[in-house]
Amino acid sequence: MTRYRVTLEYDGTGLIGWQENRQGPSVQSIMKDAIAGFCGTRPDVVAAGRTDAGVHAAAMTAHFDLDTNADANTVMRAVNFYLTGRPVSILSCEIVPDTFHARFDCTARHYRYVVLNRPSAPVLMGGRVWWVPRKLDISAMRVAAEKLLGNHDFTSFRAVQCQAKSPIKTLDVCRITQQGDEIIFEFSARSFLHHMVRNIVGTLVEIGQGKPFDIDEIFAAKNRSAAGPTAPACGLYFMGADYSMDASPNSCEPVPTDK
Amino acid sequence: MTRYRVTLEYDGTGLIGWQENRQGPSVQSIMKDAIAGFCGTRPDVVAAGRTDAGVHAAAMTAHFDLDTNADANTVMRAVNFYLTGRPVSILSCEIVPDTFHARFDCTARHYRYVVLNRPSAPVLMGGRVWWVPRKLDISAMRVAAEKLLGNHDFTSFRAVQCQAKSPIKTLDVCRITQQGDEIIFEFSARSFLHHMVRNIVGTLVEIGQGKPFDIDEIFAAKNRSAAGPTAPACGLYFMGADYSMDASPNSCEPVPTDK
Repeated sequence: MTRYRVTLEYDGTGLIGWQENRQGPSVQSIMKDAIAGFCGTRPDVVAAGRTDAGVHAAAMTAHFDLDTNADANTVMRAVNFYLTGRPVSILSCEIVPDTFHARFDCTARHYRYVVLNRPSAPVLMGGRVWWVPRKLDISAMRVAAEKLLGNHDFTSFRAVQCQAKSPIKTLDVCRITQQGDEIIFEFSARSFLHHMVRNIVGTLVEIGQGKPFDIDEIFAAKNRSAAGPTAPACGLYFMGADYSMDASPNSCEPVPTDK
Repeated sequence: MTRYRVTLEYDGTGLIGWQENRQGPSVQSIMKDAIAGFCGTRPDVVAAGRTDAGVHAAAMTAHFDLDTNADANTVMRAVNFYLTGRPVSILSCEIVPDTFHARFDCTARHYRYVVLNRPSAPVLMGGRVWWVPRKLDISAMRVAAEKLLGNHDFTSFRAVQCQAKSPIKTLDVCRITQQGDEIIFEFSARSFLHHMVRNIVGTLVEIGQGKPFDIDEIFAAKNRSAAGPTAPACGLYFMGADYSMDASPNSCEPVPTDK
């Protein structure tokens, strides 16, 4: 048995999310089918993050086991052949120790949310951004973003159906930048609650439109209805997962220890 | 009669190009239909560049005349309403003097061509880039790009069906940059020959793959078959058109005078 670690790009449009179930195509089912095309077996594929319906990934880490010792490049090329025309592509593949686990070993997850803030509807970025026609106040959103950083009880930003044991998380990065008409929200944490990023973005956008939300009050309320609406899935991207096995001298992101 | 100048974004996928004809939907026909939806008449719409089938635009300048004196913002909102769900969006609109002509007054046109240079097929940028799996030698392409700059007889880079009177053009910008796996080619000139950008990119990519093309020899041949193949339309974007009426202190692009 050989364990392969892969980095995946996917377009979440029309998918039910990462997790395989009978309601429709998922990233996991597409990956399993492609692996089965190559080697006949349909192994479990485990991801760093089980993204929701419609959410994209620029670089999702996952792992799976095969009863072969094919080299990593062969596996990548073969599975990518079976992914032709599907909304998933393997960007890299390597053989890892059997102890590596894409989900449990992940020390940080990075998300990006893209808002297109202009009066005209998106064309070239259709399905890839949340279109917010009304001009947003970036400075006001940045003041709020600053308050979201650090260790908090994120109950107010957590989907009602969230199954995480604790609502306490540490947000290590909450950054807002602008590139032309695009407003880019970046988030990093060891882990996130269900819908946490989209609920934060939905709240920040309300703040950017002048709604007098107070982040401290939202935290204190510990109630989902105290925060803003859930931003649509199409603007959200899983950007990367960190692992201690990748630690390099260039990496200076702090590894949170709150889990 | 009021002349309106608009900036358009469009997704060329599935369109027959700018120019209206009976073979399928075009940017021009979509614009005319939307304007007709708003005001009942179907005026001619004139663009800075009549892009080919499949070519995109991030900012195409066009103009049209209406028998109304509706303000520019009203026209933009109304036409954009009729463009809902179509692959064209008006990004800006202004009233201009009747003498303004989007095509004849244009002093420079800017194009961008995007190559995705990685082993794995595009997913998030599907239909927006030319996928070239084999690693390209950027330095070799840059040396060649340098030689393309300036005033030349571009016959070898001109589509056989090109109807321009003269094959002599001045290429003012021919720049290659890299952003992650994307290689971005930027071109500026007062005007271009038919397929000129795509034929240049097709040739540069061959050079980047080690083919011993010599730009001087290609120019000297004055024969389309001396250059490389035509790069696919899906990687090409019309990025902007310059007009003397927009001249600002920030603009430092030289205006070529070879036409």
